Amino acid sequence: MWDFGRELKLKINNQSYRTIWLNKDDGGRVELIDQTVLPHEFKVATLTSYRDGIVAIKDMWVRGAPLIGATAAWSLYLAALEGQESDHGPEFMRQAGQELCAARPTAVNLQWAVDRVLGKLEGNSSWDTRVSTTRAEAEAILEEDVAMCEQIGEHGLSLLKEIKNKKGDAPVKVLTHCNAGWLATVDWGTATAPIYKAKQNQLPIHVWVDETRPRNQGAYLTAYELANEDIPHDIIVDNAGGHLMQQGEVDVVIVGTDRTAANGDVANKIGTYLKALAAFDNGVPFYVAAPSHSIDWSLFSGHDIPIEERDGKEVTHVAGNDGGQRREILIANETSSARNPSFDITPARLVTGLITERGVCEASETGLAGLFPEKFQGS
Amino acid sequence: MWDFGRELKLKINNQSYRTIWLNKDDGGRVELIDQTVLPHEFKVATLTSYRDGIVAIKDMWVRGAPLIGATAAWSLYLAALEGQESDHGPEFMRQAGQELCAARPTAVNLQWAVDRVLGKLEGNSSWDTRVSTTRAEAEAILEEDVAMCEQIGEHGLSLLKEIKNKKGDAPVKVLTHCNAGWLATVDWGTATAPIYKAKQNQLPIHVWVDETRPRNQGAYLTAYELANEDIPHDIIVDNAGGHLMQQGEVDVVIVGTDRTAANGDVANKIGTYLKALAAFDNGVPFYVAAPSHSIDWSLFSGHDIPIEERDGKEVTHVAGNDGGQRREILIANETSSARNPSFDITPARLVTGLITERGVCEASETGLAGLFPEKFQGS
Repeated sequence: MWDFGRELKLKINNQSYRTIWLNKDDGGRVELIDQTVLPHEFKVATLTSYRDGIVAIKDMWVRGAPLIGATAAWSLYLAALEGQESDHGPEFMRQAGQELCAARPTAVNLQWAVDRVLGKLEGNSSWDTRVSTTRAEAEAILEEDVAMCEQIGEHGLSLLKEIKNKKGDAPVKVLTHCNAGWLATVDWGTATAPIYKAKQNQLPIHVWVDETRPRNQGAYLTAYELANEDIPHDIIVDNAGGHLMQQGEVDVVIVGTDRTAANGDVANKIGTYLKALAAFDNGVPFYVAAPSHSIDWSLFSGHDIPIEERDGKEVTHVAGNDGGQRREILIANETSSARNPSFDITPARLVTGLITERGVCEASETGLAGLFPEKFQGS
Repeated sequence: MWDFGRELKLKINNQSYRTIWLNKDDGGRVELIDQTVLPHEFKVATLTSYRDGIVAIKDMWVRGAPLIGATAAWSLYLAALEGQESDHGPEFMRQAGQELCAARPTAVNLQWAVDRVLGKLEGNSSWDTRVSTTRAEAEAILEEDVAMCEQIGEHGLSLLKEIKNKKGDAPVKVLTHCNAGWLATVDWGTATAPIYKAKQNQLPIHVWVDETRPRNQGAYLTAYELANEDIPHDIIVDNAGGHLMQQGEVDVVIVGTDRTAANGDVANKIGTYLKALAAFDNGVPFYVAAPSHSIDWSLFSGHDIPIEERDGKEVTHVAGNDGGQRREILIANETSSARNPSFDITPARLVTGLITERGVCEASETGLAGLFPEKFQGS
């Protein structure tokens, strides 16, 4: 297992981890935390080809938009190694990129990372350069992701401090949906970064963790992260958040995003829209932590974001822990079918603000253009 | 097992059942379908004392406001038998009633049924009369409940027909939350009664079944009922309804209620409020099937309805079927706690209408007073 040799923020069993890394002794192996068995088991999986990367993304060994992007970047490095070994034609990289992009449709980071890495290859003519370029670019994406998430944490912390100042002594109560934690990124997380910063700054906090059916990333991953960091939290069913807001038990909602359109419409894990409606109805601020690579500058509305539909079996069956053993059980009437749309679109009108690495802005073209003017030039 | 000797609407394995009945050979045994093991197992449980009735209500062998009321009525009959046998003082009945009412706080039918049965005992001085009176009253409550639900079915059917007329050939798509089906009542159900009536009238219908965490009454009970009746349906996670409404995939929402205030505020299973918000946001009509005994005429706002908080273990653990065997597994991070509020309040402003046994009305004091003027006299 890899120790980065410097103190990273997040540790598991007192060892520092990122979610994905290159094996330090074998440059042909990309390693990552297999998130399908967390929190019951901590398992490191290995990718030795870009096809492994596709499986890892599709079967959700890794998930979370930023981490999906990082995994795609490392997968292209593995593709370059394969191209080098087999002396494939240069079109091999583009084909690998296309296959990777097809693995999951909603997160824009996947396309973003593939475009970015392949863009660096233009003009490169040898496999040696392709290998070194993809590796350098994957490493750069990782480092930038960590830095971006930390900046989101700082900007989000300012928001939490403002709430704290109005509130007095009681802890700031944050509700989050799904896992936009460090397990969804390389480190820090997006929606959780302000929470971790709050903890570091002794700002008292309590987190309502939506379990996030059907795959329970909240109850499994977010709760696991928060428990690791000793941050007070309670798991709730996805149905409960509206009631808690009605009761004044939620000060702020912070979620992540798989793709945000240039008008501020937010695609995120299914159910996010319902929480945004409840926040709006109760005057609770609703923030979306959105690193710029989760923003699809080419889309002027959330309507155009493709929504992945996954297997109904994720609804009718659930895997959990039975006395230390992983077990999958049927939790539905056996003869019934299920539908499983995995994301929904929260219209910008329900979003109080986007927390980006450059600061907090209104969820609108105007808001985004203020922070990212270069993205709107000529449009 | 009991066959009612006439064709009831709902059958299991070709045998007609109600959800609760008096054993036909032994008048000291009240039998009911144990709903904690459905749909994986069909088990009849027996109550031989009113204390069994309390356990059945608290541990949710029976659930659903109307059925909780019916179970309380039969429990008082068992209390009368015990009083007769042990020659208790007359205060024994009132005490049994109080204990029953404490079993679950939110459903008003519990208090309603206890008040109704005990009211009939006033002036009765012998245990023999108490036994015969409680039995007659329990039987009357059952018969009235069946009739009320069927009337709700007829009034709801008219609404579905209107939607169908506007829609053309495609099936009417109904979304429902939790189980307000025949398993929540004595027969027919409340929210499902219009659906069963639609089926009988060859009106094509499709039902989106919210799984309804944490106890999955949708995925277990509603799906089981619909499958038994060959009604097309799909189970969805509670998170998905908003997205389906955004996509135009829901024509109408129909839910039940555990207690509705006289101003039309609706207490129902946790998560109902979120669906009402989404329906409102998307212009989808949102109806609440509310038999009059679910209406708390003494409350002028939903704020005063007590919300039951159940054990967090219902959130962190789930019971399901593992190859024919019932098994409970942990579906959360082991070191995290959970909170489990079980109901929420949907404000009347989000409710398109209440479907009562007397017709459909606006969810307001004015609307209710139009159908139930006697309840508002002198107020």
